Parts: sequence; C-alpha cells; structure tokens
Amino acid sequence: MLEHGGNIDLALQHFGGHLEDWIDLSTGINRQPYPVAPLSSRHWTALPSRSETISLQEAARQAYGTRASIVALAGAQAAIQLLPRLRPPGRARILAPSYNEYASVLRAAGWDAADAADLKSLAGADLAVVVNPNNPDGRRHEPDKLLALLSCVGLLLVDESFVDAVPELSLAPEAGRSGLLILRSFGKFYGLAGVRLGFALGSDADIDLLAAQAGPWPISGAAIAIGRRALLDRDWVIKTSARLDRDSRRLDALIQSQGWAPVGGTPLFRLYDTGDARAAQARLATAHIWSRTFSERPGWLRLGLPGEEKEWTRLAAELAR
Amino acid sequence: MLEHGGNIDLALQHFGGHLEDWIDLSTGINRQPYPVAPLSSRHWTALPSRSETISLQEAARQAYGTRASIVALAGAQAAIQLLPRLRPPGRARILAPSYNEYASVLRAAGWDAADAADLKSLAGADLAVVVNPNNPDGRRHEPDKLLALLSCVGLLLVDESFVDAVPELSLAPEAGRSGLLILRSFGKFYGLAGVRLGFALGSDADIDLLAAQAGPWPISGAAIAIGRRALLDRDWVIKTSARLDRDSRRLDALIQSQGWAPVGGTPLFRLYDTGDARAAQARLATAHIWSRTFSERPGWLRLGLPGEEKEWTRLAAELAR
Repeated sequence: MLEHGGNIDLALQHFGGHLEDWIDLSTGINRQPYPVAPLSSRHWTALPSRSETISLQEAARQAYGTRASIVALAGAQAAIQLLPRLRPPGRARILAPSYNEYASVLRAAGWDAADAADLKSLAGADLAVVVNPNNPDGRRHEPDKLLALLSCVGLLLVDESFVDAVPELSLAPEAGRSGLLILRSFGKFYGLAGVRLGFALGSDADIDLLAAQAGPWPISGAAIAIGRRALLDRDWVIKTSARLDRDSRRLDALIQSQGWAPVGGTPLFRLYDTGDARAAQARLATAHIWSRTFSERPGWLRLGLPGEEKEWTRLAAELAR
Repeated sequence: MLEHGGNIDLALQHFGGHLEDWIDLSTGINRQPYPVAPLSSRHWTALPSRSETISLQEAARQAYGTRASIVALAGAQAAIQLLPRLRPPGRARILAPSYNEYASVLRAAGWDAADAADLKSLAGADLAVVVNPNNPDGRRHEPDKLLALLSCVGLLLVDESFVDAVPELSLAPEAGRSGLLILRSFGKFYGLAGVRLGFALGSDADIDLLAAQAGPWPISGAAIAIGRRALLDRDWVIKTSARLDRDSRRLDALIQSQGWAPVGGTPLFRLYDTGDARAAQARLATAHIWSRTFSERPGWLRLGLPGEEKEWTRLAAELAR
C-alpha cells in the first residue's frame, strides 16, 4: 500500500496510546463533521434503488453547480481506480507533486505515467491529471488556465477533492465538455470519510463508462441518505467554509512559533517545511497528535486542522513545550 | 441496466402505493435482518484503517471456515465487476441459467462469454462460473464435483452468494487452491444489502490482484463494524438458518394452492413455474407484494421469504382471494 494519511495504525504501533487518545491530523478530513442523523432501517436492508441514487446525484449536481452527467462512487478513490479504463493506455502526465495514487494506478494498468512540473508540460498527454487545489501543497489553478488545456490533451482529469471551501476554483460549472472529467470527494469537506462517497462529473459518454465499470450498487444506502441530506444543506456549507478559512489561518499563526516555513495549503490542511519532518512528527506524536510526512520530501509536514477547542489546546500546549 | 430484483421503483411506478406499503419479495435478501447496533462516530468520520479491515477479514475467515486469502469488497457485485481483469480476456463459460451480470460484465471487457448447460460443458474454459446454490433455480453442486473441474478450466469462480444457510455446499474450506476463486455475499443472508459488503476468497495472487484493483478503501466504516459483529455471531447464524429452512418450506406449502410448479430454490428464495409470471406478478402487486419475473422464462416467478408474521398474513390473504 502507498504512503497515505489516515494511517493511524502506524501511529499506535510506534507511539502507543489508544485509538481514542489520538488527534489524527494526518489527513485533510474536516474534524467537525456534518452531523449524521439516525438512518431508517431501509437504508441498511434494501439494495439502493435507482430513484434513491438519482436523487443523491441530483443533490450533488445542485451542490456543485452543474447540470452535467454525474455518477456517485465509493469515494474519489473509487473513480481513480476506474480511470485507467476510460481510455486505451497511453501517455498520462500528472502535475506533481500530488496525490500518489494516480501514477500508481495508471502504471499498474499499463499506462506510461510520469510527473509534469507545470501546466504547459501536460500538453500532448492522452490523460492529464491536475489536483486543484493541490494536495499536499495547496497550489491553485484558475479555471480558465485549466480550460485552455482541453484543446491540447486527450482527457483532462481535474481532482477537486479539496475544492469545497474554495468553490471559485471549481470547474464543475463547465462539466459536460468533451474531454473534461472532474472528481469530487464527499468525505473530506463533510468530515465523513468512512461513508465512502465521491462523484465523477463529465461528458455523458465518460460518465456512462464509469457507471458501467462501477456496477449497479457501488455505494451504500447510508451513503445515499447521509450524502443527500448534507449536500442540500447550504447553511452548513457556508458556515463550515468560513470556519475552515478562519481555522486554517489560526493554524498557520500557531505554527509560526516553530520556525517552520509555510509551503501552502487549503482550508482543510496546511503544509510546512520543518527541516526534519520525521523529528517534527515524532515530537507531535509523543502528545498523540498524528501528522503526515512525505518520504520523497523529508522536510514536509502536512497538518489537518484540529476540530474541537480541546484539540487546539492540546496542539498549542505541545508546540509551546 | 440489466433486469434485477430489488427494482422497487418499477413496482411503485406501475402499481402505485408508497415505498413503505410494499413487501419486496423480488430479491433473495433475508427480511429478518441482523440487528444493526449504534455505530461509533469514528466509523463515519475516519478512513477505515488497515487494522479494522484486517479484523473484518479475520471475522469472515472464521465465519466461512477458511484460512485462505480474502478481500472485503462492496458486495459480491463489486467482485464481479473486477472479475474480467483477473485474467487476459479469453473464453468464459457460465453455468446457465444464472445471475445475468456475469455474461454482461465479461462481454463488456472483451471476453467471449457464453452459457453452458452442465458442469461438463465448462471444461476447457479460461474462466468457468458456477453459482452454488444457483440463482434463480436453486440448483446445487456437490463440492467434489466442482473441485474436479479445477484441472480442466483456467479459473473456476464459485459464487456462493446464497450458500450461508446451506454451508455444507461451500467450497470455502478449499479456498486458496490455485485456480479457485469464491465469492461470498454479506447482504443477502444477513438481510443488509444496503451495507454493500461481500468477500472474495482465493489464492494469494488472485486476492492480491482484486485488492489492488479495488483500491485502499473499498468499503465503508459502517460495513466493517456491522460486518465484523454479524459474522462473529454464530448463534444468530444457526437460529436464522433454521428459520429460513422452515420458512422456505412454509412458502412452498402456501403456494401449493396456486397450482404453480416448484422449480427449486434456496432457503432465501423459491422459484415457481406459474405459467404466466407477468400475470402472477401483477396479481401480487395489487396487494403491494413485489416479485421477480424473468423475461427469458415467461413462466418463472421468484419469491423471497416474507419476514414478520404480518407479511405472511398479507401474502396468504392475497393468495386465498
């Protein structure tokens, strides 16, 4: 398995404690999740019906501001797993550094997958992958810059897993254009990664292909019920976006005392150059705060935002020691 | 989308009523489900960890009586979706009549997929598919007969989606043999199809391949928590198997009055030759009882077992009219 955040087993194994003692900041998952209401038993017992699935997809269309074809999948990751089969294997170029699953999944399926350093270098690729805003460095690309790529790549995949709190960057309103495929994650912004829900938006042909590969019941009844309710709750989105924006600046301010250089981030996580991330991670881990390191970038430490006030207090106390 | 049970939308559309008015007997999903205990919030919020996934898979191994490699997927259907990629496309032969997704998924991935009338005709296939006991006719194959096939096919896929209540038919204790892959469904016997959980058991190499295709987080935190608890509950399995056995004979007895010829079945569903299944379906549907027809077999009607006593009463009343 590739290096990922959320690998809390590793934290427990190396630094002890019980699962419930840990504050897991190793991911970009919102730690003040959308509240899960009690589910009716039907969501557990019955196969999700076509009309329920359609009503979830309609809610997602509304939330993301698009009329394009859409398919609900078990997380953005599930779409990544299917991506290599949307086109015959060819040249894939991935704007780097970014989420490591793309190169891995594409290579395993016979693609020539390599990193690209800038948007320009994506030109000519059969498949170009851009994560916007980017994980882990928060790099942002304006929609018109990305749209300009459409004419010079086969398929442009824009992974918008972290776009919810910066919706002005989203290309969702342009979804449906031929050669453009957009992935949205439900679990990160809504803080419900265990639900396994995400969406792909694109041309009718591409979404039909993805839906056929995913099969008739790719997501759970719970994902449909929870996702639908959350996606239609505009008040929560607005309140949460404002809070994440505030809190991400609060984290940067808190970190200043450490002399770690801010590299970038999104409202869901921040990236710092610590000089020695393994040492920084180990130090936070003694206080049972877990963070994300990157073996290929030994200085980088990524931190999600603490949730409740007591988590901020614990982080501040450890940083002040 | 192919013809499936559980298509309750269609029932509502053609015969009216509200969702909660209907008794859905169009599937083989147990209508007295395993009780879902309240979930801790972590199962919703966090990415499923490796150790949680492993503990679910260990519970499944114990329940199914195997030490072989195993992977948890979003239903047996999710394994079927990945099946065409386990081997290079070749000749697939499916013991027919059976679950229609096999031929469809294999053909879409470039396989030469065709029906076979008996076990002998599967010989020479690169991939042989047997559903045991079979859906929809309940046909049973003794384990030694299936094992004998291993030497004359490339890969033998045994779909044991309906085997839980007739465990003496299961090949799970033989899983791990090269060329043998077994699918298990969680949702049918446990009555929790909306959870989306199933397992593939097989050789290390095949299970590694399936796991790589499925990606790091194919099932939800809820599926892990609910599945683990249910699979370790032997008392419930024993009690439920006995009840399903009783109730399947009760349904056959109830149907006798109709003059429908019993074709076969499993403890989770029964198949009858009604002469005119569309008419029989329409008649039951006026009482808001939904059933499964098969366009290629116009006489066949498949009925799952009613759950609570009041469901039996409603079915009996409609049949007595």
